[in-house]
Amino acid sequence: MDKKVAKEKFLGVFPDLVQELVGELKKHGMPEDAIQWFVRNLEYNTPGGKLNRGISVVDTYALLKGYSSYDDLSAEEYKKVAILGWCIELLQAYFLVADDMMDKSITRRGQPCWYKVDGVAEIAINDAFMLEAVIYILLKNHFKADAYYVDLLELFHEVTFQTELGQLLDLITAPEDHVDLSKFSLAKHSFIVIYKTAYYSFYLPVALAMYMSGVSGEKDLKQAQDVLIPLGEYFQIQDDFLDCFGKPEDIGKIGTDILDNKCSWVVNTALKLATPEQRELLDNNYGRKDATAEKKCKDLFNEMGIKELYLEYEEKIVGELKTKIANVDESRGFKGSVLTAFLNKIYKRQK
Amino acid sequence: MDKKVAKEKFLGVFPDLVQELVGELKKHGMPEDAIQWFVRNLEYNTPGGKLNRGISVVDTYALLKGYSSYDDLSAEEYKKVAILGWCIELLQAYFLVADDMMDKSITRRGQPCWYKVDGVAEIAINDAFMLEAVIYILLKNHFKADAYYVDLLELFHEVTFQTELGQLLDLITAPEDHVDLSKFSLAKHSFIVIYKTAYYSFYLPVALAMYMSGVSGEKDLKQAQDVLIPLGEYFQIQDDFLDCFGKPEDIGKIGTDILDNKCSWVVNTALKLATPEQRELLDNNYGRKDATAEKKCKDLFNEMGIKELYLEYEEKIVGELKTKIANVDESRGFKGSVLTAFLNKIYKRQK
Repeated sequence: MDKKVAKEKFLGVFPDLVQELVGELKKHGMPEDAIQWFVRNLEYNTPGGKLNRGISVVDTYALLKGYSSYDDLSAEEYKKVAILGWCIELLQAYFLVADDMMDKSITRRGQPCWYKVDGVAEIAINDAFMLEAVIYILLKNHFKADAYYVDLLELFHEVTFQTELGQLLDLITAPEDHVDLSKFSLAKHSFIVIYKTAYYSFYLPVALAMYMSGVSGEKDLKQAQDVLIPLGEYFQIQDDFLDCFGKPEDIGKIGTDILDNKCSWVVNTALKLATPEQRELLDNNYGRKDATAEKKCKDLFNEMGIKELYLEYEEKIVGELKTKIANVDESRGFKGSVLTAFLNKIYKRQK
Repeated sequence: MDKKVAKEKFLGVFPDLVQELVGELKKHGMPEDAIQWFVRNLEYNTPGGKLNRGISVVDTYALLKGYSSYDDLSAEEYKKVAILGWCIELLQAYFLVADDMMDKSITRRGQPCWYKVDGVAEIAINDAFMLEAVIYILLKNHFKADAYYVDLLELFHEVTFQTELGQLLDLITAPEDHVDLSKFSLAKHSFIVIYKTAYYSFYLPVALAMYMSGVSGEKDLKQAQDVLIPLGEYFQIQDDFLDCFGKPEDIGKIGTDILDNKCSWVVNTALKLATPEQRELLDNNYGRKDATAEKKCKDLFNEMGIKELYLEYEEKIVGELKTKIANVDESRGFKGSVLTAFLNKIYKRQK
C-alpha cells in the first residue's frame, strides 16, 4: 500500500481515540477546562511524527495474516490493530515529552517542545504521565476480552521499563554539561541504544502484531527479537553515523551529537582506536558548545576512517541479519518477510 | 499491634525488594554505576515517610482474614501482602518526586527533594518513571499465578490515572504563580482531593487487601469505596483546615497554603460566603508571597467563622460515615471494622 495512504488511514483512527478518552474523563466528571487541556496534550504530542512504529504494527499484522492489502481487513479489525499502533505512539509521546525536558530541548517535530509551550512548563511532567496512563485505558477498552490481554499489559510494562533503563544509563553516561569520555564505551553504547530505542521501536510493534494475529509462541517471539534487537541497534548506529557524516540536506537537520556530548557510536569507535594524542584531542574538544572544537573532532573522525569502519560494520550486520532472516522457522506461522520489511526500510537510508 | 513494631516489620521487607529489583537489572546486564543510581533512587524516595498507606494494606488484610495479630500470618503471607503495601509506597514515591518538581519544592520528609540532590536535577523525571515501573515487576514476580493478578494490574492503572487527573486539575486551577480565585470552587476542590488523594491513599490499600483476601466482589469493593472516598475527602479537608488553623507545634510544620495559592477547603468555603468586600480582600491578598497579605486572609477566615464551619462539617461527615459503616453488609466477608480503623486514625487528629 502507498505509504502516504497508509499514514492517512492510520491518522484517521486518532480522533476516535481522543473522543473515547474524553468520554472517560467526562464519566469521571472532570471539569471542561481540564478536558480541554488533556485533549491539547494528546493532540500536540502524539500524532505529529512519522508514525513508523504505529503503522508497522498494522503492516506486520497484515503480513502475518497473509493479507495482500489493507482492504482485506474489516473496518473493525483495522481499528483494533491500529489502536495497538497508537499505544506505541502514546508510549513514545510519553518518553519524548519527558526526554525533551531532561535534555532541555527547544523544538520537536517542527514545533516548540511541549514544556516550552506558553503556560505548560512543569505541568508537562504530569501530562507525560497521562500519555502513558491512557495506553492502559485503551488496552482495557479494546482487548480485555482477548486471551492475550495480560500479555499485552506485561509487554508494555516490560518494554517501558527497558526504555527507562536505557534512558537512565544514557543520562548518567553522557550528561550534556559534564564531559567525561572515560565513562564511554562501545559496550555502554550498545546497551543504551538497545534499551532506549530497539525494544520499543522495533521489537514492540512486531510483538504486538504477533499477539493479535495469534502467532505468539515463545519460540516465535524469540525469533523476532533475535533479529529486531540487532536491527534496532544497527538503526541507531546508522543514526549516529548520519548525524556526523550525513548531509544536512539529506537528513533534514544539522547534527549536534558532538556539541551535545552524545554517547554516539562514532565517538565510541574513535575512542576505542585512538592514540594517546588523538584521545587528548577528543578529551579537549568533544562535547564543547564550540564550532571550532566540533570541527576538530570531525576532522579527527575523518582522519581515523570512521566512515569506512561504519560501512564495514553495515555490510557485516546486514549480512548477518539476512542470514538470520533466511533461517527463520516459519512452521508455526511466523514469517521472515516481516523482518525483511523492517530491514529494507533501514538499509542504506540517507535520512 | 504496636504501631512502631508494625512499621519496623514493614520496613524489614524493603531491602529484600531492593535486592530483587537489583537482580532484575543485573539480568539485563545493566552496568554497575546505573545499578547504584537506581538503588539510591529507590532508597532515597520510597521508605522515608510515615508508610501509613503501605502498612494499612497489611492491617486491612489481617482484619479481613480474622487474624488477631501479625503472628497469625506466615512469613511468606506477611511478605506477600507487604509487597502490595510497598507497591503503594512506590506509587506515592513516583507521584512525590514529580510533584516536588512541578511545585518547585525544596524539602520533603526532612531531606532535600530528590531533584534538588546534587547531580540529579531533571534525571529525577526518569527516576520517577522507574519508581512506577518497578511496581509492575513486583506484581508480576509475586502475583502472576494468582487469579486476581489482572485485577491488581487494572486497579493500579486506574488509580494512577485518577491521581493524575486530580493533579492536572489542581495544577491548572491553582498555579503557584498566577492567582485567579474565579477558577476556585468547592466542587473543584472536591474533585481535586478525591482524585489526587482519596483514591490512592484510602481506597487503593483496602481494595488491594480485599483482592488478596478473596473478599473482592463488586458489591464489596463498592461498599469500601462508598466510605473510603468521602473519608479521604474528609482527611484532606482536615489537612487544609490544620494548615491554616493548626498549631505548628502540633502539625509539625508551618502552613503555607495561603502563600502558595492552594485551592484549599478553607479559601473555597470563604469564597462561597464572601461579601463583595471580603472577596476583594481575598483577590488582593490570597496567594501572595507576603506575610502581611497572608495575615489579612487569616484574619478574614477567623472573622468569617471558617473554624466553626469546619467543626460543623466534621461532625456531619463523621456521623454520616459512622452510619454507612454501621450499615455495611458483612454477609460476603467484608468487615465494617476495616473502615472504622481508618476513621479512628483520622477523627480529631491534630497532626
